[in-house]
Amino acid sequence: MRLTGPVTPRAGIVVTGTEVLTGRVRDRNGPWLSDRLLELGVDLAHITICGDRPRDIEAQLRFLADQGVDMILTSGGLGPTADDMTVEVVARFSGRRLVLDEALEERIGEILRPLMKRFRYWDPEAVRAANRKQALIPEGAEVIDPVGTAPGLVVPGSPVVVVLPGPPRELQPMWEVALATDAVQAAIAARTRYTQRTMRLFGLPESALAETLREAESRIHGFDRLEITTCLRGGELEVVSRLEPDATAAYEALAAFVGDRHPRELYSTDGTRIDDLVAEALAGRRVATAESCTAGLLAARLTERAGASEYVAGGAVVYSNRSKTQLLGVDPRLIEEHGAVSEPVAEAMARGALGRFEADTAAAVTGIAGPGGGTPDKPVGTVCWCVRLGDGRSLTRTLLLPGGRSDIRERSTTVAMHLLHRLLSGGGDDAP
Amino acid sequence: MRLTGPVTPRAGIVVTGTEVLTGRVRDRNGPWLSDRLLELGVDLAHITICGDRPRDIEAQLRFLADQGVDMILTSGGLGPTADDMTVEVVARFSGRRLVLDEALEERIGEILRPLMKRFRYWDPEAVRAANRKQALIPEGAEVIDPVGTAPGLVVPGSPVVVVLPGPPRELQPMWEVALATDAVQAAIAARTRYTQRTMRLFGLPESALAETLREAESRIHGFDRLEITTCLRGGELEVVSRLEPDATAAYEALAAFVGDRHPRELYSTDGTRIDDLVAEALAGRRVATAESCTAGLLAARLTERAGASEYVAGGAVVYSNRSKTQLLGVDPRLIEEHGAVSEPVAEAMARGALGRFEADTAAAVTGIAGPGGGTPDKPVGTVCWCVRLGDGRSLTRTLLLPGGRSDIRERSTTVAMHLLHRLLSGGGDDAP
Repeated sequence: MRLTGPVTPRAGIVVTGTEVLTGRVRDRNGPWLSDRLLELGVDLAHITICGDRPRDIEAQLRFLADQGVDMILTSGGLGPTADDMTVEVVARFSGRRLVLDEALEERIGEILRPLMKRFRYWDPEAVRAANRKQALIPEGAEVIDPVGTAPGLVVPGSPVVVVLPGPPRELQPMWEVALATDAVQAAIAARTRYTQRTMRLFGLPESALAETLREAESRIHGFDRLEITTCLRGGELEVVSRLEPDATAAYEALAAFVGDRHPRELYSTDGTRIDDLVAEALAGRRVATAESCTAGLLAARLTERAGASEYVAGGAVVYSNRSKTQLLGVDPRLIEEHGAVSEPVAEAMARGALGRFEADTAAAVTGIAGPGGGTPDKPVGTVCWCVRLGDGRSLTRTLLLPGGRSDIRERSTTVAMHLLHRLLSGGGDDAP
Repeated sequence: MRLTGPVTPRAGIVVTGTEVLTGRVRDRNGPWLSDRLLELGVDLAHITICGDRPRDIEAQLRFLADQGVDMILTSGGLGPTADDMTVEVVARFSGRRLVLDEALEERIGEILRPLMKRFRYWDPEAVRAANRKQALIPEGAEVIDPVGTAPGLVVPGSPVVVVLPGPPRELQPMWEVALATDAVQAAIAARTRYTQRTMRLFGLPESALAETLREAESRIHGFDRLEITTCLRGGELEVVSRLEPDATAAYEALAAFVGDRHPRELYSTDGTRIDDLVAEALAGRRVATAESCTAGLLAARLTERAGASEYVAGGAVVYSNRSKTQLLGVDPRLIEEHGAVSEPVAEAMARGALGRFEADTAAAVTGIAGPGGGTPDKPVGTVCWCVRLGDGRSLTRTLLLPGGRSDIRERSTTVAMHLLHRLLSGGGDDAP
């Protein structure tokens, strides 16, 4: 289902670094650059990852060139250590010799000077050597000033090669500078404006959505002009449709069809994530959390956004049964009678959080994250939630979640977010 | 610095899925398979990622074949929806036609039957069609029974292609089955046994380590037989050395050299992560946390491991100043006089946590995560920690951390872990 016309510019990304290849470091640059390219209407075809090996880096550059991409973005391998060799390889690949840019060498030296004062055991000669290495650039390349100590490059040619450092904090602003260069602008000149529209559903199995989409395909005119990918993660279904602007009517019809089929499960029609929906719903309110198995993940999640201090009072991580009583006043007899993982205890935790933090909104989670602790009655994955408002409205749920310890903790946190959203949007069990 | 002899088998990994290409889903299979291959002594040369597009998948398969890999592992694209097309592409790539495996079709049907009962609006004909699609396999391929609903494949040839589903929970056991097949065993028969050794340091800048490694290179015989990669993440430096067993003496010399140069910063010589070191140090103890800016991340991290209930009593997320007093008894005059982000307040939080949770170990963190809240005296990134034991020994620190909100929160949590480790290992400021 290819939407791209013959002139849509294509790009590839090469991520270098043995730590990324072996998964010790998570690559954030691929995804971030991918989003930037999408916004620009450039079609990202491939991301390739290799270790700090010139032969493999070069092979990946050649692969992308053979694939006919208009632009290659590289990330990583610009540091001072011996395993950083991207510039050397890019020079060879683009048939340009390495030349010393003396102005650049001086600029890097200025950046390093204050750092050198801090560390006593630097060998000034070794630092100068590293400095010089980072100032060797392919002849004719344009330099992007360092945000850290490593400069980036825009190497003209077909494809254009944009060379950026590994740390996202450096890559991101330097990409903006690279984007503004003539060479990059020319490479992406013929881009098509794509739109990306996202729907989000919760509590629906992926196969049920697949069924709905199959039906939509036969009913909706222009469905084939939508490039749709669905992704189930942590219980949340993300449906992303990529389309040219003149296919908007087909998309609106699809969105209406999905909303009609799954009104309860569809929680976002414009891509807004549950975290932002909850943050909006908490405006003017004060929330407190009471967590057992999630042990702080929910409080941490609610405070991810800047400005969270406006609506987050605090939370209690009541991992032991004793602390449930000590901090939240949960009646020990409830725990004895129903068990720590039970709806009555979840409700008592929520009430306790409301009082303890003088909050008007509370979310409590208690469950068995495993691998131990399960019983035939309450196997690993059994989790109870209670979300409660000061006016008495509340929602209480019990679910059996799949997966291992960290899956269960993560998904429990997500379910709590959705329950908070539902309650704050007007849903609720009968108020006691 | 290539260690691989002419016969070391090489592998490549193809990760398919537009959700991975665009970063909406984090690829876990690349890293996991990478570790498995390393353990086997197989050299992983490339990981490539593409969207759900036959043309790109095929291009990546051909690239890897041209690179002379002995084995290609693919992940993703085996589901029932239209965007799942890996098997079709692999068949075309390997020059084999697709045939219907009727026994497989029946097995998948059996797996689906109980699921079909749960969802009322499944169209039985559509389900059968999806079922049949997943039972079409390249002629001559070996089937790996599904863990979910999608079977895997081992397609003989040069290279051998191992086709696995996307979800890690399915891929991981199915890889073990694939590994045992004759085709895969033959492909990796000539492998060399590599060892991987890891050192970890904290509180040392990467350039200082680069300097130490440069010196080591000139002093240590056999240094060139070590493939060393260093990676700085969240303040922690990971130094991974890959070597053939007969280069062990060179590695031991390197490790001794690094330990000699940086005795305080080297915290792990066998790759053990700080989380495991802290868990070991907490055996027989009870820890409680008091968190402001990290808002539960530290408590969540301490409870990641199974069995954490043995040593974690609980924690207080005291996001607001009021809650610092309400839950932990922090004197409001301390907050007024020194500010919420100050060493006296961190110390009061730690003492409060010890008492409130009846713990013998406490860790408190208070800081300015940003983007707002900074002042010239206390800019964004200013964080104070206090870790304290019941016997009175404690460590108190203030640092200025770099980065954005989530960097600061994450790194604050890591620093807390290291301070806990240091205190529990016998370090400590004078006990008050």
